[in-house]
Amino acid sequence: MTTERILEGLARREPAALARAITLVENQRDGFEQVLSHAHGLLGRGSTRRVGITGPPGAGKSTLTEALIQRFRAQRFSVGVVAVDPTSPFTGGALLGDRIRMESVSLDPGVFIRSMATRGAQGGLATTTEEVADLLEAFGFERVLIETVGVGQTELDIARSAETTVLVLVPESGDGIQALKAGVMEIADIYVVNKSDRPGADKFRQEVEVMLGIRRGNAFRHVAPHHRRAERPSAAPSDGWEPPVLGTVASTGEGVDELAAALDRHYSYLQAGGRLAERRRQRLAARTRAVLERSVRRWLLEGTRVEELLALRLDEVADGRRSPYDVAAEILDQVKAGGGATR
Amino acid sequence: MTTERILEGLARREPAALARAITLVENQRDGFEQVLSHAHGLLGRGSTRRVGITGPPGAGKSTLTEALIQRFRAQRFSVGVVAVDPTSPFTGGALLGDRIRMESVSLDPGVFIRSMATRGAQGGLATTTEEVADLLEAFGFERVLIETVGVGQTELDIARSAETTVLVLVPESGDGIQALKAGVMEIADIYVVNKSDRPGADKFRQEVEVMLGIRRGNAFRHVAPHHRRAERPSAAPSDGWEPPVLGTVASTGEGVDELAAALDRHYSYLQAGGRLAERRRQRLAARTRAVLERSVRRWLLEGTRVEELLALRLDEVADGRRSPYDVAAEILDQVKAGGGATR
Repeated sequence: MTTERILEGLARREPAALARAITLVENQRDGFEQVLSHAHGLLGRGSTRRVGITGPPGAGKSTLTEALIQRFRAQRFSVGVVAVDPTSPFTGGALLGDRIRMESVSLDPGVFIRSMATRGAQGGLATTTEEVADLLEAFGFERVLIETVGVGQTELDIARSAETTVLVLVPESGDGIQALKAGVMEIADIYVVNKSDRPGADKFRQEVEVMLGIRRGNAFRHVAPHHRRAERPSAAPSDGWEPPVLGTVASTGEGVDELAAALDRHYSYLQAGGRLAERRRQRLAARTRAVLERSVRRWLLEGTRVEELLALRLDEVADGRRSPYDVAAEILDQVKAGGGATR
Repeated sequence: MTTERILEGLARREPAALARAITLVENQRDGFEQVLSHAHGLLGRGSTRRVGITGPPGAGKSTLTEALIQRFRAQRFSVGVVAVDPTSPFTGGALLGDRIRMESVSLDPGVFIRSMATRGAQGGLATTTEEVADLLEAFGFERVLIETVGVGQTELDIARSAETTVLVLVPESGDGIQALKAGVMEIADIYVVNKSDRPGADKFRQEVEVMLGIRRGNAFRHVAPHHRRAERPSAAPSDGWEPPVLGTVASTGEGVDELAAALDRHYSYLQAGGRLAERRRQRLAARTRAVLERSVRRWLLEGTRVEELLALRLDEVADGRRSPYDVAAEILDQVKAGGGATR
């Protein structure tokens, strides 16, 4: 399918064209930026809302996502889902288990679910995932869910690209929570304790609430504003949003209405006082920087003599006569000098 | 402390100079590449071995690391540790809990432990961590341990920069293992089931063994070589190493001798047939690329008119008249044209 054909298909809202567009973007094939540039013109006009869902493996995120999809469908919203799956560096394939389990919604034409592989994304995964979410929004889905598994830096960056970030925990997370909390607990707009029919759920929920309260107090007393990451603002409690801690049993649907209501509340909160528009501007600035960095990297590693120079110098680097820093500086000087370094 | 003073201090093996050098590198302050360039000349000469330790939160990695340190100290090896901690985007501080617990070794002058914050590293965390490990090796530590918490892409990249990668699991990981396995299980050279005195440990260990066997079979039947990530080779079973699955109880020291023996075996395996030298060359090539990308990014975002152009175009991007891709292309064209885009 040519880029032109994909763009035509997207305009006619053909799911096959959407699937092709996503593959194009995921693999950064020729024309992918043209498709994204076109999609960009269609964003921010409709009523699309993006929700990021993350949490440790086994927390029941997929079941909760499925329950949310059903809830949205009952309200007649169309739903697009990007699920970022951990991928084997060897097999290169996305893990399909969770996707297959979503059978209650996977045959519904108002629902589009796409698994993204993490392979080879090399730091660009957050950008690529956001771009796929753009395609889903441009296609017209009214709710876009971005699900990531894990609690690493990349996974958090991805979840935080959405307007509302939901962190899903389970009572059993207690063991790992000591390590998790400092890195994760403040990034979410809504906290969900799933499987909350299990023993210890109430106590765990209270612990999370207490922890949020305590840490919030610390954070704003001691930290200068420039230490916060400005580009991807989370729902910082400083600006008036108190992240709720909800209990759900995703497998029975218990608490899902409350979660949907909290999502609505958070969206209204963002709309008030221009926060949504301001967040969008910040995200677009960050995106432009990320796209520029990616373009420069591609140009540098593919369009210039970098690999040639690297091959020439590698013996010297390996035996310690030169360092990676000397060689990088040499190459950068050539790049700065302009055309000289390019083929 | 000036760069010169730091270099002198490092030559005299002053721990304070090492601490300063690490801070310099961590924050990429002026002179950090000079220090790293100097350190590079001291690498690969001594008997330093690097071990990466990763796994989900709560698996007992820190306790196991402490036990390994004690084991190495009993053999009279000096030990440097880099621990990559999840960090709150708000508080900006590393989580100290686990470090404090390492009290049995923290006062030993033959042991140096450093926590790294993940804040602001923005994709460069793997490179920075490797650079701190370089400083520890250049300083003369004979065993360098790199500990990361989590199972995201970044954490794996970090753990895999070591010569030997250890993945620590616990019997309770079973619930999350379905999601973990495709992304994580094949990256390690040695698998450890910690807390193996708990119920179900033997069964879990067998499951991991079976899974490794099965997935290995799949991987090499169906995947073309170019799908593998060439730059950071893991101990691919294809080249003759069978990753062992060991049981430990880190808190009592049970199984730690076996782990140390497995580390020795893996190192001998790497030394045989020039694998170690080949890996080192590949790592140095990858490092040079990473340093170059970082330098270009810094130059681009700090030394050029990027922010100025971005500010000029942001209104048009926000209202959809232009896309991030148009603007990035415009800026890249100016960069390619050479000096024109720079201040």
